[in-house]
Amino acid sequence: MMSDSGLVALFEKKSSSFAISNFNLKDPVGDQILVKVAGCTICGSDVHTFLGRRSAQVPTVLGHEIAGRIVSFGPNNKRIDYSGNHLEIGTFVTWSVVANCDNCIYCKRGQPQKCDSNFKYGHKKHNPEDPWVGGLAEYILLVHGTKVFKIPEGLSLEVVCPANCTTATNVAAFRVAGNLAGKVVLIMGAGMLGVTACAMAKFYGAKLVIVCDTNEKRLLKACVFGADQSTLPAGLSDVVSNLTEGLGVDIIFELTGAPVAFENAFECIGIGGKIILVGSVFPSTPVGLPMEIVVRKLLSIVGVHNYVPEDLAKALDFLNQTRHLPWESLVGKWFNLSDVDLAFQLAQSPEYYRVGISGAMNH
Amino acid sequence: MMSDSGLVALFEKKSSSFAISNFNLKDPVGDQILVKVAGCTICGSDVHTFLGRRSAQVPTVLGHEIAGRIVSFGPNNKRIDYSGNHLEIGTFVTWSVVANCDNCIYCKRGQPQKCDSNFKYGHKKHNPEDPWVGGLAEYILLVHGTKVFKIPEGLSLEVVCPANCTTATNVAAFRVAGNLAGKVVLIMGAGMLGVTACAMAKFYGAKLVIVCDTNEKRLLKACVFGADQSTLPAGLSDVVSNLTEGLGVDIIFELTGAPVAFENAFECIGIGGKIILVGSVFPSTPVGLPMEIVVRKLLSIVGVHNYVPEDLAKALDFLNQTRHLPWESLVGKWFNLSDVDLAFQLAQSPEYYRVGISGAMNH
Repeated sequence: MMSDSGLVALFEKKSSSFAISNFNLKDPVGDQILVKVAGCTICGSDVHTFLGRRSAQVPTVLGHEIAGRIVSFGPNNKRIDYSGNHLEIGTFVTWSVVANCDNCIYCKRGQPQKCDSNFKYGHKKHNPEDPWVGGLAEYILLVHGTKVFKIPEGLSLEVVCPANCTTATNVAAFRVAGNLAGKVVLIMGAGMLGVTACAMAKFYGAKLVIVCDTNEKRLLKACVFGADQSTLPAGLSDVVSNLTEGLGVDIIFELTGAPVAFENAFECIGIGGKIILVGSVFPSTPVGLPMEIVVRKLLSIVGVHNYVPEDLAKALDFLNQTRHLPWESLVGKWFNLSDVDLAFQLAQSPEYYRVGISGAMNH
Repeated sequence: MMSDSGLVALFEKKSSSFAISNFNLKDPVGDQILVKVAGCTICGSDVHTFLGRRSAQVPTVLGHEIAGRIVSFGPNNKRIDYSGNHLEIGTFVTWSVVANCDNCIYCKRGQPQKCDSNFKYGHKKHNPEDPWVGGLAEYILLVHGTKVFKIPEGLSLEVVCPANCTTATNVAAFRVAGNLAGKVVLIMGAGMLGVTACAMAKFYGAKLVIVCDTNEKRLLKACVFGADQSTLPAGLSDVVSNLTEGLGVDIIFELTGAPVAFENAFECIGIGGKIILVGSVFPSTPVGLPMEIVVRKLLSIVGVHNYVPEDLAKALDFLNQTRHLPWESLVGKWFNLSDVDLAFQLAQSPEYYRVGISGAMNH
């Protein structure tokens, strides 16, 4: 049932309380879809913005790891999702974090996340005329160009909220990695991205998965999700050397964004290896890259940012096929929208991979 | 006709005179091939070694850009080249700079240039028992695992000497670059590698080729070989911005090894672009790599060192198909082996892309 209005948590200033405000709902136009937010998990990049580590146009509505249920369709909406599934009022959906035009040079090149007129949920300056642009709200309006996906039956909110960010971005990184059969993979970072990457590396056939983090509890969790070997940074090069007979690893996923993690990783890469950078979504000190080693070791260093819609389709399939893993355990706590300030405090704790906001629902 | 002995120019100490010494010839064994050196051009990496910018085990026989004529075969040699052509005494040949085993992990992975038991012509410590290991000599002995190629009829010594280094390495870099159709390519450096890369970029279908160097005469030459636009480093970012409407270039070939060239290039790369590092075959200051830009721009940075045998086959085909270009003009002077000291002096001058040593032959 559609109300006349709903709540939005506005982020106005770094490390400050959110402003909970009420805005009127409007009927969706064109092929828009109005969605009631079922839940939104707080991503590491939301925390970066909250803490002022990266800039944002304020006020804004943070939150982009969202799942929700369809409230109403614009008159021109075809009610078919990106994969061809039928959509109706009440369907449980997620969608690509970037809505794109499909016509600009970037869209045509296969880089829809860099669309000239991209619309990125959870990253827009808030405008009272179009208030439903992020996940920390009771509603969200899916604009033209949003790639919508019906969520497979039976996947819980905990499992699917991170799908359109953490899981899909990992799929993009694994697409860049190529065939993992027989490969030794090193995952730098055992947060939400890293734990998911450990599971995905095994899912895609890696021979051996090594994970490195500074937090021992997180390393244990990463092993539950598929890592064969875990290590603190101090032991990394020995672990890699022993497990690969000195050859080094084939693929490294750098998921932390920390220059020191890149530098540690660089020592572990084997000839012809690929280092995939994913975590660097905030400014940091440049790392010192020795060009001669890149050349002589035939290395590739590849940046991955967001993903293409097909990656989100694969992310949902991956979550559907790995239900045996304790995904629910990664979302530590749920809060009502009115408790968003507390949620952001807890989201900074290494105790929690994710905390979630459940809109107007009670969990 | 086979003599009993021949001359070798031994490199013993940086920036010092070569020692011209006489060594006995022995009949090739197994599938070895004894070749009389027709010519050897002095590569930039030979100059780096000569000047002490990179280390070498001395004494050594420098020179790896070689073409020669077959003198004799070992008893088990099948007299067939890598592409299936018949070989006989007198056949004009070149060969892969690295001989490889085809059995180790690197060979099986498609990285024969990193073969566990690789034998690299022009890079071995000299041993009087096996003296024929580099191009600055009258003879060279092709060992087991060397991939030999018959040189297409009518290609001159000037054209083919650089084939097994400059040209084949460029082919490897273009293989990594992928399909160039419709792409804007930036070539950093207009030396032998760069001029060849300009020609190859057009040959492989690039839409627009921009070349950057500090030497205006070399820029003019690069345009003769196919560059559409040339610029000094100071004008580079404006040229790229104007020619690409601010989008940046798609592919950069970094052929100089200079950190400043990489840094200049980095400012010119477009979203989803690829920077291919080729020139960094000597130690240099690490470049500062901003991880966030690599991520947000979806960049790839890929190192290329040497090549696989198929690249040399394509290099010969490329030279055969681009006979209309003034390749001969790139080899400025030929010297007898006894004048190798003078040759190395001139090889350091920007006047010459290459100078050549012609063994016992007079040019």
